[in-house]
Amino acid sequence: MNNATNSAKSTPRKTRRGSRSHDKRTGAPGQNPHLEVPYIQRKIRTYDLLDETSLEKIEQTADRILAEIGIEFRDDPETVELFRKAGGQVTETKPDCWRIKFPPGMIRECLKTAPAQFTQHARNPKNNVVIGGDAMVFAPSYGSPFVMDLDNGRRYGTITDFQNLIKLGQSSPWLHHSGGTICEPTDIPVNKRHLDMVYAHIKYSDRGFLGSITAPERAEDSITMCRILFGTDFVDKHCVVMGNFNVTSPLVLDGVTTQGIRTYAAANQGSIHVPFLLGGAVSPLTMPGALAQCLAESMTACAITQLTRPGAPVVLGCFLSSLAMRSGSPTFGTPEPALASLVMGQLARRLNIPLRCAGNFSTSKLPDAQAMQQSMMSMMSAVQGGANFILHSAGFLDGLLSMSYEKFVMDTDLCGMLHSYCQGFEVNDDTLAFEALAELGPGQHLFSTAHTMRHYQTAYYDSALDDNQPWEHWTEQGGIDMATRANQRWKQLLADYEAPPIDATIDAELQAFIQDKKDHTPDLWH
Amino acid sequence: MNNATNSAKSTPRKTRRGSRSHDKRTGAPGQNPHLEVPYIQRKIRTYDLLDETSLEKIEQTADRILAEIGIEFRDDPETVELFRKAGGQVTETKPDCWRIKFPPGMIRECLKTAPAQFTQHARNPKNNVVIGGDAMVFAPSYGSPFVMDLDNGRRYGTITDFQNLIKLGQSSPWLHHSGGTICEPTDIPVNKRHLDMVYAHIKYSDRGFLGSITAPERAEDSITMCRILFGTDFVDKHCVVMGNFNVTSPLVLDGVTTQGIRTYAAANQGSIHVPFLLGGAVSPLTMPGALAQCLAESMTACAITQLTRPGAPVVLGCFLSSLAMRSGSPTFGTPEPALASLVMGQLARRLNIPLRCAGNFSTSKLPDAQAMQQSMMSMMSAVQGGANFILHSAGFLDGLLSMSYEKFVMDTDLCGMLHSYCQGFEVNDDTLAFEALAELGPGQHLFSTAHTMRHYQTAYYDSALDDNQPWEHWTEQGGIDMATRANQRWKQLLADYEAPPIDATIDAELQAFIQDKKDHTPDLWH
Repeated sequence: MNNATNSAKSTPRKTRRGSRSHDKRTGAPGQNPHLEVPYIQRKIRTYDLLDETSLEKIEQTADRILAEIGIEFRDDPETVELFRKAGGQVTETKPDCWRIKFPPGMIRECLKTAPAQFTQHARNPKNNVVIGGDAMVFAPSYGSPFVMDLDNGRRYGTITDFQNLIKLGQSSPWLHHSGGTICEPTDIPVNKRHLDMVYAHIKYSDRGFLGSITAPERAEDSITMCRILFGTDFVDKHCVVMGNFNVTSPLVLDGVTTQGIRTYAAANQGSIHVPFLLGGAVSPLTMPGALAQCLAESMTACAITQLTRPGAPVVLGCFLSSLAMRSGSPTFGTPEPALASLVMGQLARRLNIPLRCAGNFSTSKLPDAQAMQQSMMSMMSAVQGGANFILHSAGFLDGLLSMSYEKFVMDTDLCGMLHSYCQGFEVNDDTLAFEALAELGPGQHLFSTAHTMRHYQTAYYDSALDDNQPWEHWTEQGGIDMATRANQRWKQLLADYEAPPIDATIDAELQAFIQDKKDHTPDLWH
Repeated sequence: MNNATNSAKSTPRKTRRGSRSHDKRTGAPGQNPHLEVPYIQRKIRTYDLLDETSLEKIEQTADRILAEIGIEFRDDPETVELFRKAGGQVTETKPDCWRIKFPPGMIRECLKTAPAQFTQHARNPKNNVVIGGDAMVFAPSYGSPFVMDLDNGRRYGTITDFQNLIKLGQSSPWLHHSGGTICEPTDIPVNKRHLDMVYAHIKYSDRGFLGSITAPERAEDSITMCRILFGTDFVDKHCVVMGNFNVTSPLVLDGVTTQGIRTYAAANQGSIHVPFLLGGAVSPLTMPGALAQCLAESMTACAITQLTRPGAPVVLGCFLSSLAMRSGSPTFGTPEPALASLVMGQLARRLNIPLRCAGNFSTSKLPDAQAMQQSMMSMMSAVQGGANFILHSAGFLDGLLSMSYEKFVMDTDLCGMLHSYCQGFEVNDDTLAFEALAELGPGQHLFSTAHTMRHYQTAYYDSALDDNQPWEHWTEQGGIDMATRANQRWKQLLADYEAPPIDATIDAELQAFIQDKKDHTPDLWH
């Protein structure tokens, strides 16, 4: 059931170690080698907001939604048939459209085979990530059609942007996963983008990544490319790629989505199931109602994986947004969804399925104060709520419409801070440091105590971007803001970037596969 | 013991209601009348980071510091005598300098008379605040010598800045308290500043405020002015002003401080006792050690109040800072102190004394992304940790050296969001909203459901500063960042400001007192 169990013994085919080395960065700001990990193992408690009774009410409402309202399925009779066999009450409401009501407990029964945690393997085994339990994985933002930076403003994303952003991700020790559609490469035909995107992840990163979900055949191509990279047998036995699927809220799963879900599950690959709940538009605007709906929708999508292949790795998802009451625009990084994210963590743990939740959300159009205020509100809730896979951990601006180069490096620095945060601290004789105070006594600085000398390199996270200098030094150095420093930093990181080595035979095989696909398919632009 | 008990029955002398009315602001952004309260009554659980055993170890270390190292007292034999009588082991280490070691349990015994919560009365009784328990009070930043804004940059604060900032505070519904030294009015002689500062709080705000602590006679003047405002008898029975005292860490209490503490306590007025612990400099840089020291130092300062006048209102304090390892500069808004703030909340609740902790801290020199990222890290911990009095809730920049006009209004908007956050949400049939989803069923928007109509005005906090518009609208409106919006906003708020009415006789009496003091004292400039 659990892909993690035999991960230590297996290694993917022909992989070499990545080249990122720390010694180059000695002396530059942002070095915290003691905090670098392939993924976070959370050592702090979760912030459990609601009591048992309240959680049960939300769960009961989710079950009631499934039993009394049901979920609509479109254009995928196979998925409908899977649910019918499992006990779902199916009504065809119009051609190729079915409403399924699920008897109480049925969906939870389906989910009993879902692993509590699993490992997503990376081509560099040092970058394998555990998803579930106390593990926490940060991945960049996903799905923006636009990119922006301070020099060139906002424009449609291209494959060059896509590659640049993968490189920025790879160069940060504070992300653990390469993400997926890091921006839309709009200069590539819609039906061929996935090939170049998956290739860019493989080529420019040696971490795990997300494959395509925009069509079942693109999902299949993503998995085929992973088979070339990892070997067919390895892929059948291990999770090496995941698909990030959206429910068509409220309460609809369209055929492209459900077919894609089945494609990943059939190949024993991971999938994430995320209702995008914009309160007042596609969900109730009171958080308990949004949570109940989220749970109902995500559980149903998750169940498809288990009916397709019991034990397939699967991730519950939650993406809650509020509404600007004046304009009807979605808002992100606001307090109410932040609280609900904490509760979603509780609900996921009760279900014992890994959770994707929240991220560095913002509606700001610039990497300004609003951007980081909103990001922090949302991201802290992801971490404190114990989410396991945190997509949108870097770059999110403009209500997800734009991937920002500057915000990307701001967010990765914040992700570094959260490595320290998630470590918490141990209370023991050394950290209680009675001797440090006793050594010199009242009124004496502790700069030179043995305790200070012993801990001074690792006590505090060293930020790559924060300016903590006195005002005079800051002024002498140009008096620049964080956005400007971030602009300088991403350019430096791209200049310094070195691709992780890849086996030439595999690389050629991947390129041949892509070329063949491209040659035999006409371009589609929408 | 508890000043809150009879607060409902008593009203201060000759006070009229404040004039701030909400109807003027109808339609403008940032209106959330359903969230306006004189102080927050926290409805969400605290985020309790440490287990019982770890908390006990910190407490035991604090007790050990007090018993084995002790605290140094300077230039105040009266305070030393109070502790000697209570059981302290006093050694005179040099002239006018004593080390006192406290037998285990002695300080905790002294604190048994301290109220678990109390009311600070404001001249407008609607603005009375409870300090302690689940109550949470936001007050502006305190103590910056400089002010800054985007137009005029950084310069020394003046009494005009002081008055402006009091007005900005008063105009925000999301602060509950007028604070104290909102900036240093450096154009007034050092020994007369307190008179103008206290007067500005009384005149331009009708909320509670902090008095002077820089000299015992200035503390006394602050209280005398309150007696003019509230009446002598009222002041003797109620807390109407507080002093914010700093320990001279590590482990020193100087005579000016201890005399000031006794002055407030003798008058039955409140006091806050804050070690400013810069890890590695004046405290251990591991958080458990810093917390133990903080607890030891703050408890000792608190104990002075109870030995002076049992039952006097008192607040435990915590101000933790980390260190930039490269430069030795203090850093604020970093992850390690944020965690420690959560623990300080636990320690204060175990002691059953109100807590002042954290705030909107930042080392940034601009109201930029760094400013709000750091602020959020710190401020969220104050709120989640259950701090009762949160000084530095608005305006803090430049490592507390500067009060920023723009940051002030950004922070107050964030404080508004935290009003919604602290409300949490109730899980009931209405908020679970099953009917809202059932009404139209799968695939149908909820815009027009009865549930949406019922909740749409109050479901989400409406920010005064966040831009949530689509990119196109934002661009058409100038494409400005949050700092620029904040610059526009504070100017508008100052232009719209109306002083709360004050009784002319009292006003004249206050002015006469100030004039008399000024006339009979030579100016001192340092």
